[in-house]
Amino acid sequence: MPEYTEKHARAGLDARLPEIETWPNQFRGYSIKIVIPEFTSVCPKTGLPDFGALTLEYQPDKLCLELKSFKHYILAYRNLGIFYENVVNRMLADVVRTVRPVSATLVGEFTPRGGLRSTITGSYRRRK
Amino acid sequence: MPEYTEKHARAGLDARLPEIETWPNQFRGYSIKIVIPEFTSVCPKTGLPDFGALTLEYQPDKLCLELKSFKHYILAYRNLGIFYENVVNRMLADVVRTVRPVSATLVGEFTPRGGLRSTITGSYRRRK
Amino acid sequence: MPEYTEKHARAGLDARLPEIETWPNQFRGYSIKIVIPEFTSVCPKTGLPDFGALTLEYQPDKLCLELKSFKHYILAYRNLGIFYENVVNRMLADVVRTVRPVSATLVGEFTPRGGLRSTITGSYRRRK
Amino acid sequence: MPEYTEKHARAGLDARLPEIETWPNQFRGYSIKIVIPEFTSVCPKTGLPDFGALTLEYQPDKLCLELKSFKHYILAYRNLGIFYENVVNRMLADVVRTVRPVSATLVGEFTPRGGLRSTITGSYRRRK
Amino acid sequence: MPEYTEKHARAGLDARLPEIETWPNQFRGYSIKIVIPEFTSVCPKTGLPDFGALTLEYQPDKLCLELKSFKHYILAYRNLGIFYENVVNRMLADVVRTVRPVSATLVGEFTPRGGLRSTITGSYRRRK
Amino acid sequence: MPEYTEKHARAGLDARLPEIETWPNQFRGYSIKIVIPEFTSVCPKTGLPDFGALTLEYQPDKLCLELKSFKHYILAYRNLGIFYENVVNRMLADVVRTVRPVSATLVGEFTPRGGLRSTITGSYRRRK
Amino acid sequence: MPEYTEKHARAGLDARLPEIETWPNQFRGYSIKIVIPEFTSVCPKTGLPDFGALTLEYQPDKLCLELKSFKHYILAYRNLGIFYENVVNRMLADVVRTVRPVSATLVGEFTPRGGLRSTITGSYRRRK
Amino acid sequence: MPEYTEKHARAGLDARLPEIETWPNQFRGYSIKIVIPEFTSVCPKTGLPDFGALTLEYQPDKLCLELKSFKHYILAYRNLGIFYENVVNRMLADVVRTVRPVSATLVGEFTPRGGLRSTITGSYRRRK
Amino acid sequence: MPEYTEKHARAGLDARLPEIETWPNQFRGYSIKIVIPEFTSVCPKTGLPDFGALTLEYQPDKLCLELKSFKHYILAYRNLGIFYENVVNRMLADVVRTVRPVSATLVGEFTPRGGLRSTITGSYRRRK
Amino acid sequence: MPEYTEKHARAGLDARLPEIETWPNQFRGYSIKIVIPEFTSVCPKTGLPDFGALTLEYQPDKLCLELKSFKHYILAYRNLGIFYENVVNRMLADVVRTVRPVSATLVGEFTPRGGLRSTITGSYRRRK
Repeated sequence: MPEYTEKHARAGLDARLPEIETWPNQFRGYSIKIVIPEFTSVCPKTGLPDFGALTLEYQPDKLCLELKSFKHYILAYRNLGIFYENVVNRMLADVVRTVRPVSATLVGEFTPRGGLRSTITGSYRRRK
Repeated sequence: MPEYTEKHARAGLDARLPEIETWPNQFRGYSIKIVIPEFTSVCPKTGLPDFGALTLEYQPDKLCLELKSFKHYILAYRNLGIFYENVVNRMLADVVRTVRPVSATLVGEFTPRGGLRSTITGSYRRRK
Repeated sequence: MPEYTEKHARAGLDARLPEIETWPNQFRGYSIKIVIPEFTSVCPKTGLPDFGALTLEYQPDKLCLELKSFKHYILAYRNLGIFYENVVNRMLADVVRTVRPVSATLVGEFTPRGGLRSTITGSYRRRK
Repeated sequence: MPEYTEKHARAGLDARLPEIETWPNQFRGYSIKIVIPEFTSVCPKTGLPDFGALTLEYQPDKLCLELKSFKHYILAYRNLGIFYENVVNRMLADVVRTVRPVSATLVGEFTPRGGLRSTITGSYRRRK
Repeated sequence: MPEYTEKHARAGLDARLPEIETWPNQFRGYSIKIVIPEFTSVCPKTGLPDFGALTLEYQPDKLCLELKSFKHYILAYRNLGIFYENVVNRMLADVVRTVRPVSATLVGEFTPRGGLRSTITGSYRRRK
Repeated sequence: MPEYTEKHARAGLDARLPEIETWPNQFRGYSIKIVIPEFTSVCPKTGLPDFGALTLEYQPDKLCLELKSFKHYILAYRNLGIFYENVVNRMLADVVRTVRPVSATLVGEFTPRGGLRSTITGSYRRRK
Repeated sequence: MPEYTEKHARAGLDARLPEIETWPNQFRGYSIKIVIPEFTSVCPKTGLPDFGALTLEYQPDKLCLELKSFKHYILAYRNLGIFYENVVNRMLADVVRTVRPVSATLVGEFTPRGGLRSTITGSYRRRK
Repeated sequence: MPEYTEKHARAGLDARLPEIETWPNQFRGYSIKIVIPEFTSVCPKTGLPDFGALTLEYQPDKLCLELKSFKHYILAYRNLGIFYENVVNRMLADVVRTVRPVSATLVGEFTPRGGLRSTITGSYRRRK
Repeated sequence: MPEYTEKHARAGLDARLPEIETWPNQFRGYSIKIVIPEFTSVCPKTGLPDFGALTLEYQPDKLCLELKSFKHYILAYRNLGIFYENVVNRMLADVVRTVRPVSATLVGEFTPRGGLRSTITGSYRRRK
Repeated sequence: MPEYTEKHARAGLDARLPEIETWPNQFRGYSIKIVIPEFTSVCPKTGLPDFGALTLEYQPDKLCLELKSFKHYILAYRNLGIFYENVVNRMLADVVRTVRPVSATLVGEFTPRGGLRSTITGSYRRRK
């Protein structure tokens, strides 16, 4: 009865989202953690809203993530149909592409659906 | 006075359960944790219900676990006579056989019986 | 003023206790944790009761600990004069002798006496 | 729309702050953790106050940080325009320069702004 | 304005304190943790009381710390002028000298003074 | 789209359940509270399980509720199709009819369904 | 600088929303509490999303609120521009008009905006 | 199957217990609350131990409860067969008879048995 | 040694602060609670900063408090010398004068100073 | 065996303590709560230290309690032999005599002794 077509599995991955901006980092060798407690998107199959908290932790290199633009980037998921797993993996990829950190981890803790609670964790480490 | 016959020790291990379904994973190198806070089964010796919370954490390879079918799989334990230890080990085996993950851990935290509280933890890691 | 005679220091170590029973383990490579929140024994010096919570975690080999017999084993400490340290070390030895696990850890968290709160941790790992 | 000029990015880094004082350490090989739950500074872009808790942990060598002077040092940020990241990195540098510890870590957990909560962690380890 | 004379920095280190007593350990290879939630001493500079919780964890060899004598040892700090750092380092030294453990760690978590909360951690490991 | 037929609205109200037993109360003018943390029944519309915690508080008159028979009474809801509201109201009526208390309150706190969490509270007070 | 025009102050009050449905209540004299932990709407002035938890408690008369239709009613606020105060007061009015309860209270606890956290509480009691 | 004979229902009510002592109260119009977190007795039917926390709150008149004798009084329940309800009601009666307070309340919160958690509350108020 | 001159006792009471703005209330008979977790002002005697959380709860009549202007009003205390008691009483008076509510309560919970933690509660109710 | 002589029962009641100072209250009709988390005194019978937290709540009339002098007043109990009940009743009397409030309540929550935890509550209300 559940049928995940290719369309569902890739929903939201190619959607156009606002740019994440950066500012010039003044130090090295430290880490930044950002908690976004009020993330929401839409399930591409049922059309029902998903809710969760995202936690991004990264070690900046030359650039730091600019928080206000990141907030607008996140707000753009509000009416986007996209699975949990893809939210975390796409967002991590977008952060890595823009901020070019030494390393980064993104954790998405989503509220229960059908009584099941999901947490997705993606990681990136720059090759030496 | 307690007598665990072979029948009790293997109860529920061969019961027919609904299929766990999957969908095609779009990314690699990340992990998924699913918490099932309302698991219940039946003690094969006393016939009394057992209650607990299950936590599955796995690193997907080509397939992701489809949550709705997993929920139906879990509901099928409701009236099944099976020990705690076997719940965790059988369910882990079923997930590994169906989803073929890189690695997987299943933790079952059961509510007290006779004042004793049990937690069972099973793990799987694909051979390289 | 405190005087721990040899009698006190070894009190309860040789007392006869009910047998811990076992049942045939059906799986390998997993762990079992059992919390006993309501342990009580008696201080061999003052005769006053001691209270605490015990947590046993072990990796079973061919045998699993049978919970009901373990509960009766634990109840037998109720009027036994024995120090905290000896409770944990003797109980761990009894479990290892009977269940023959791959490894086992026993933690005893005792409620305050004279304002001081003690936790005793014993560990066993089978020699390879 | 957000525009982090060089002026913003370096704001507060060169401000004159009270000296951190020290006293002669009497032991070696131990660590000291200090929690400052009521840090406040000012955002150099918006002029709005930032709030947070700072946790400094260090292994002293010949000198210990004198707490009263450290408190006055911290109070001096109250009306200083400086970004989170720079608070943590500058303060860590000032502590290291003055106290010359074997190692030191400074964590700044800031309260939410625009719904996003930031934690910055800087570390120092003396070269052997 | 703060001036830590040598007298302050070494205050309480040579004070005479009650003996810590021991009893013959009956087992090996386990650990004992003791929490003392109500420690109090006096600041040698201001004369104001300090409060805190101490946690001692050690792996006993031939001797176990006798709790009642340890309590009297601790009570003797009540009107002693001594800095936090010296409380933890001296007490650890006294325990090691008397109990001769395989290893020992002592953590002092002190309540805030001037809004700053200090935790001091000392460690000992017997040379092999 | 939701359609609550009379059949659904009254489902489970007339089902035969085990008798609640009593024992002769030895005192007067006091109250008894019983928490049942692991209640489960079935939704009569969807067939999916419901979970919750029940709290009964009553002031006994001549009779006290016998706990073991009450537990069996509660277990009988496990596979019964019945709405939350009816669970609480029927159970309260059954307790009042059997135990004949001076007063009684029954609270059912059910786990979320569709993200909504329901609590039902029924009360009885004997007419003077 | 803030300017609440009449348009803002009444935004969302006349928007068309899905019908709340009901089912025939089988008992009297009890109360029902429903927690909706994931409410979200839009600020009519800034266009930014608001988040909060709603708690409805009511004493039903002839009708009970049907949960599934209530969920769809709530989902309809997702992209509606409406102030906190108006969310609570309008929703309470809609519930009262449809369910015709003996009494009802609706509490909206909203997440911080600009560091300020608002809770709005509306109440209704039928005139006798 | 459960059968509460008169013997069970009255078990422990007439047992001889140590005297509760008193000391002369120096003030009036205030209240004293005493929490006994480690109460234990025995179930008169099963012989299994019961555990719980007791909270006594009273307004003293001419006498205050002497704590050390109260502790010995409580220890005497350790091997006494007596139901929860009777523990609370008898102990309250013994306190009232000895201390003759203006008012007194005794709450017994017992740990779960068979998954059910009981709290018994008895109250006394002197007639004016 | 402490000497509270009239100047200290009235410090900050007459300082000019930004206007609190309002918007036209659309409903009646409900209440609004606003938590301000990051209040800070200055002690008029020591010049040291005070920190605290404020909670305003009021029942609006014709006007609602506009949150953004209230935030600016609160920010203006940052460098104002004023005692705790006066913060709460003056702010309540300013809110009542501007918003003209049916009733209002303001609670200020301040962080410890010298180890003592103060909470000030002021209330207003319109005369009928 | 416990013997509370008149000397013990009245110990500390007549001891000379530092004066509590006041400052002129600027408002009326509000309340002030002060928490003193680190109170300590000495048991007049055993000579062992007692620890606890005190909470004073009062409605000031013409005078407010000056915090610094109150702190010195409290410090003077450190080496004073006095029972819990007398600490609370004497301190309340001293506050009432000095501050002359409309009403006052003092709660002393003391840490466990012999496993029993005591809370003493005294109240004062000015006669109209």
